[in-house]
Amino acid sequence: MVVKSELKLIKSLQQKKCRNEHGLFVVEGKKTVEEVVNSNMKQYKLFAVDPDGLEVEGTQVIKITSRELSQMSGLKNPNGYLGVFYIPKQTGNITSDWVLALDGVQDPGNLGTIIRLCDWFGISDIICSTDTVDCYNPKVLQATMGSITRVSIQYMPLDAFLGSTQLPIYGTFMDGDNVNTTKLPEKGIMVMGNEGKGVSNAIAELCTDRLTIPQFGGETAESLNVASATAILLHEIRK
Amino acid sequence: MVVKSELKLIKSLQQKKCRNEHGLFVVEGKKTVEEVVNSNMKQYKLFAVDPDGLEVEGTQVIKITSRELSQMSGLKNPNGYLGVFYIPKQTGNITSDWVLALDGVQDPGNLGTIIRLCDWFGISDIICSTDTVDCYNPKVLQATMGSITRVSIQYMPLDAFLGSTQLPIYGTFMDGDNVNTTKLPEKGIMVMGNEGKGVSNAIAELCTDRLTIPQFGGETAESLNVASATAILLHEIRK
Repeated sequence: MVVKSELKLIKSLQQKKCRNEHGLFVVEGKKTVEEVVNSNMKQYKLFAVDPDGLEVEGTQVIKITSRELSQMSGLKNPNGYLGVFYIPKQTGNITSDWVLALDGVQDPGNLGTIIRLCDWFGISDIICSTDTVDCYNPKVLQATMGSITRVSIQYMPLDAFLGSTQLPIYGTFMDGDNVNTTKLPEKGIMVMGNEGKGVSNAIAELCTDRLTIPQFGGETAESLNVASATAILLHEIRK
Repeated sequence: MVVKSELKLIKSLQQKKCRNEHGLFVVEGKKTVEEVVNSNMKQYKLFAVDPDGLEVEGTQVIKITSRELSQMSGLKNPNGYLGVFYIPKQTGNITSDWVLALDGVQDPGNLGTIIRLCDWFGISDIICSTDTVDCYNPKVLQATMGSITRVSIQYMPLDAFLGSTQLPIYGTFMDGDNVNTTKLPEKGIMVMGNEGKGVSNAIAELCTDRLTIPQFGGETAESLNVASATAILLHEIRK
């Protein structure tokens, strides 16, 4: 049995404002809940309609009814398991050789895919401008497939971050150098821009190098999706 | 004024069954409607709350009320323009040097992104297995950003298609050859598998070459998203 105020609190975590106020976020689904429990993220509470179905050790799982779950869940069809975790504190530390910087990425699916790409390519730090979509947005978490536990994501004014680094700053533009013929260094920062507007002018001025992924043939397509472009650039960094 | 039966017909085109029955599909939004009108796709009818806002020449645009639009639209918040077009007939022809073959891709956003990638990289033919998501699904069309007009997409039993080709067939697997050290030929077929299950066994047996995009570092991420993997492979094909 879960008290009404708690049901209400957890439901409210679908909204960014409430996540930030409480410092908590929600994860749903057996596999992702297990993955976050088994990471170094700090857990607030775990709920399950069938607690025995959850493969977690030494952790209390609160048994709930389907009705209670649907009162907490952000899904149309909740799937039995819901975990609430503390949003990790931003340390300001960077441990990765290459850092991905996001300048206003808006689509939750794109951010989720980008986090998953960083996990695959061993980029452990993402710095997001303050207007980038929140990485604890449920739609982002769904698209990360658990990669959120292995990549550090920090939000800060991007101009301040880029202004304070000694690393080369690569921005992606329509008119930059061909990435296929550019030798990338061992360390650096790769800046990806907003879906519609690309890299903002203020951030473009801070870039030390401009890159382009060349289009093939007739220049008909308008642009690459930002997650697709990130896939190609991280692949080039790690080759 | 649009008769009730027409409103109902157009609304029904949100469903694959009805699209196939009538041979029609729906596009929404000013920019995409304009792009499809100005392509070689055959138009059934165009509707607009403000016909003068649509930049199309020599084409009849039917003025409708917002209420009529919402009765036809698949969107929560319809945005003023809706076009109905004929689904192109499958010719069976292939004109592209490289062909992308999709084996059961299910997510509409992934298929839309893949179509957009083919447009960018000049791959003009996609062959989809019959269990791949329908490319005239509104969510696919939304993700293609108009690229659907520049890429030919055909649905057929993939085993029959692959069994009848003389081209090398590259499949993407977890245990294939490193794509970074494999020289790709000038022509071929690239097979991408389902989001969860990858390339099916029956199709895997028809592949002449097996490729892998190498992961960096600790092998923690489960897999690349199929659209991300497609981005990297098409980039490699065109380098």
